[in-house]
Amino acid sequence: MNFTDLIEKKKQGKKHTKDEINYIVSSFMSGTVSEAQVAAWLTAVCFKGMGIEETAYLTEALGRSGKIIDFGELNGKIVDKHSTGGVGDKVTITLIPLLAAAGVPIAKLADRGLGFAAGTVDKLESIPNLNTNLSTQAIVNQVKNINAVIASQSDDLAPADKKLYLLRNEISAINFDALLASSIISKKIASGASNIVIDVKYGAGAFMSTPDEAVNLSKLIVSVGKMLDKSITAIITSMEEPLGRAVGNSLEVIEAIKFLKGEISSGDLAELTYSIAVTILLQMNLFDSGKDAELYLKGLVNSGKALEKFRELIIAQGGAAEVLDNYDKFVLPHYKVECESKKSGYIQNINAYNIALALKALGAARENSKKPIDLSVGVFLNKKSGEYVKKGETLYTIYSNDEEATKTAQRYCDDAFSINESKPPYNNLIYKIISSKDEEDDV
Amino acid sequence: MNFTDLIEKKKQGKKHTKDEINYIVSSFMSGTVSEAQVAAWLTAVCFKGMGIEETAYLTEALGRSGKIIDFGELNGKIVDKHSTGGVGDKVTITLIPLLAAAGVPIAKLADRGLGFAAGTVDKLESIPNLNTNLSTQAIVNQVKNINAVIASQSDDLAPADKKLYLLRNEISAINFDALLASSIISKKIASGASNIVIDVKYGAGAFMSTPDEAVNLSKLIVSVGKMLDKSITAIITSMEEPLGRAVGNSLEVIEAIKFLKGEISSGDLAELTYSIAVTILLQMNLFDSGKDAELYLKGLVNSGKALEKFRELIIAQGGAAEVLDNYDKFVLPHYKVECESKKSGYIQNINAYNIALALKALGAARENSKKPIDLSVGVFLNKKSGEYVKKGETLYTIYSNDEEATKTAQRYCDDAFSINESKPPYNNLIYKIISSKDEEDDV
Repeated sequence: MNFTDLIEKKKQGKKHTKDEINYIVSSFMSGTVSEAQVAAWLTAVCFKGMGIEETAYLTEALGRSGKIIDFGELNGKIVDKHSTGGVGDKVTITLIPLLAAAGVPIAKLADRGLGFAAGTVDKLESIPNLNTNLSTQAIVNQVKNINAVIASQSDDLAPADKKLYLLRNEISAINFDALLASSIISKKIASGASNIVIDVKYGAGAFMSTPDEAVNLSKLIVSVGKMLDKSITAIITSMEEPLGRAVGNSLEVIEAIKFLKGEISSGDLAELTYSIAVTILLQMNLFDSGKDAELYLKGLVNSGKALEKFRELIIAQGGAAEVLDNYDKFVLPHYKVECESKKSGYIQNINAYNIALALKALGAARENSKKPIDLSVGVFLNKKSGEYVKKGETLYTIYSNDEEATKTAQRYCDDAFSINESKPPYNNLIYKIISSKDEEDDV
Repeated sequence: MNFTDLIEKKKQGKKHTKDEINYIVSSFMSGTVSEAQVAAWLTAVCFKGMGIEETAYLTEALGRSGKIIDFGELNGKIVDKHSTGGVGDKVTITLIPLLAAAGVPIAKLADRGLGFAAGTVDKLESIPNLNTNLSTQAIVNQVKNINAVIASQSDDLAPADKKLYLLRNEISAINFDALLASSIISKKIASGASNIVIDVKYGAGAFMSTPDEAVNLSKLIVSVGKMLDKSITAIITSMEEPLGRAVGNSLEVIEAIKFLKGEISSGDLAELTYSIAVTILLQMNLFDSGKDAELYLKGLVNSGKALEKFRELIIAQGGAAEVLDNYDKFVLPHYKVECESKKSGYIQNINAYNIALALKALGAARENSKKPIDLSVGVFLNKKSGEYVKKGETLYTIYSNDEEATKTAQRYCDDAFSINESKPPYNNLIYKIISSKDEEDDV
């Protein structure tokens, strides 16, 4: 096979065979083709696309490029949840303990943040001493012991995906459906998950801007998953405004703990956590009715079982479980500033991207993969969309370690809020659910 | 400036500024961007194109990336001729002595062959001891002394074009108009030529298959040349069948010598040589009428002046000028095979690509840039299109050093000829001439 011919083939819009895709990935990994050739091929893919079969071939080749976690007798029952990334998205931290408390074995391999979306690994590391660098064997053992683990994706899982992602980032080939889908699912192949829910976000604080884009990616993800014997459900959700009230690493973990304690029973964070958990219970045929499943899950929260599962996870991973009872044990910022609303009215919208910029100004977001981030800082949204604020009342609170940064963050936050006299219409958080049964459920 | 942003800009089909193009070329040369990024950009260019201005910016950046030959007081009068490449194309060797004999200073920087098109440098090297590796100063001196030089393109002229060409070759981005045009003209910027004729070939033995493709490239070349103050005329010619009767390095030089001796006064080789020479004399305002110019040129051939100019060139470049009088002084093949026609009739066509494959089988074409080629072998077409052949009469002759190769070449040649009872219509060799005066002359 000749790589230049494969570039030409894709430039002409023709479809690759499985052998060709395997050749592309293996010669990329072995270095027998140049990165320039792979870059040209990726660019041609962005223009001419890939069919579902080709995307599945690529996904499999990427997923099988390194180790594959073997959960032994649990294989076929391992759950994973993935989000395409958003602002204030701490659903991994609320969901994993909840599902594990429901008896579902769940292994989440998480990333650090890059760009404006913070990563679950960063958030969890705001719990002192918590270790996410677990060996494959430690991951398997922890799931067998307590049903739940949140570990960082190690270098030996899907290394081709990691290498290809870096190249895509270099050549502006990140946001292309077939490449996004193959990257996401390849990690699930390596992680050994069988039942997967993917939260595909759109809006100001997401990589995709419109619901249509999210639907297209979701359909592709579900179809490719089906070809590869993975049961995948895509939940398409709005990321126009941050999820929950807390944005910033330790602040988000505290909000997740409050949810697990039953202190946050309504609003977008609760809605999304329960929706995803219910979807998984139904997907695994553990319940016939979504209503019954939700009641059961709420019971796990109200009885304290979900919180206890999180305690088990923190202890298993060496973290300071005392944070659950004493939030002062988190790394704390030097001060907080409560910012008043300059007018009265209903919150119409809080632009998630502006809040992300405020976080970046405060030092909570990673500018490149090497720079450390400040886990203590963040923004708390005292008011969210649909709520009424009086002039002079606290609109949001900034947690900061730097006065200049605070001022910048304040400007971004002020710009993020739009306030108006009329009560805004309720915006659905969940736009659509697409499952591997090929059903599309409008919500 | 950020290279990834420039890739994205081109992917979106937007136009680059001059600064951006300069940045692309300079960072490519300095290595501050990766070849992968340049490969992605080139691929995006192949999909989204470049406008005339962008192409001119690129041409200038490539052309000015190294040395520029300074002909001193001759600047503004230096002629160059370029062909996009074809089978049996020895017009450089017939044309340069002819024009130099007409008093026109002409400096031809030639390439070695690559792929199926042989290069003028290879052909000339079939003259024992002839040296084409000349310094810039030697090139200038020789033009001042005898009006003519044929040298190989040195590494310090338009090095960015050379580097970009290698990358284009690696990623299947050769045959794209804006890249072809900028590559061709950039070399003319570096070589200091002011009056340029470019023979743009189409057909079975050329890189472009249709006249339309050749017209599009020609228009672009002429427009870009105009923007860069180069007077360029494009002659669009058919390369369905090999030019002349000889194909193969030393055989082609012998045919060129015969033309210069006045022994070949009709047929495609003579027609094209005179057409290009006339075009240049008119372009330089040395004649008012093409007819007068042609008569003058024919006089230079018939008086022996053109041949003498070639002798001067060979001597100036250290070659064995005795080859002009004794063709046995060329490197000779071991034997020749005269191949008979299997039927009687008129030659309808001789597929140039098949003849090129025969040459490759014989060892006359370069498979990669390192392997040496056999300068002695080749094919002589005893019959050409429109001529009548009797069954049993010699149709073509193979000059070879290897029996197996001869058999393979014979199969390709047999397939190349189509013979039929009816006399075929005359096919125009010259399809169109496009000049920088924006005139298109149908021929």
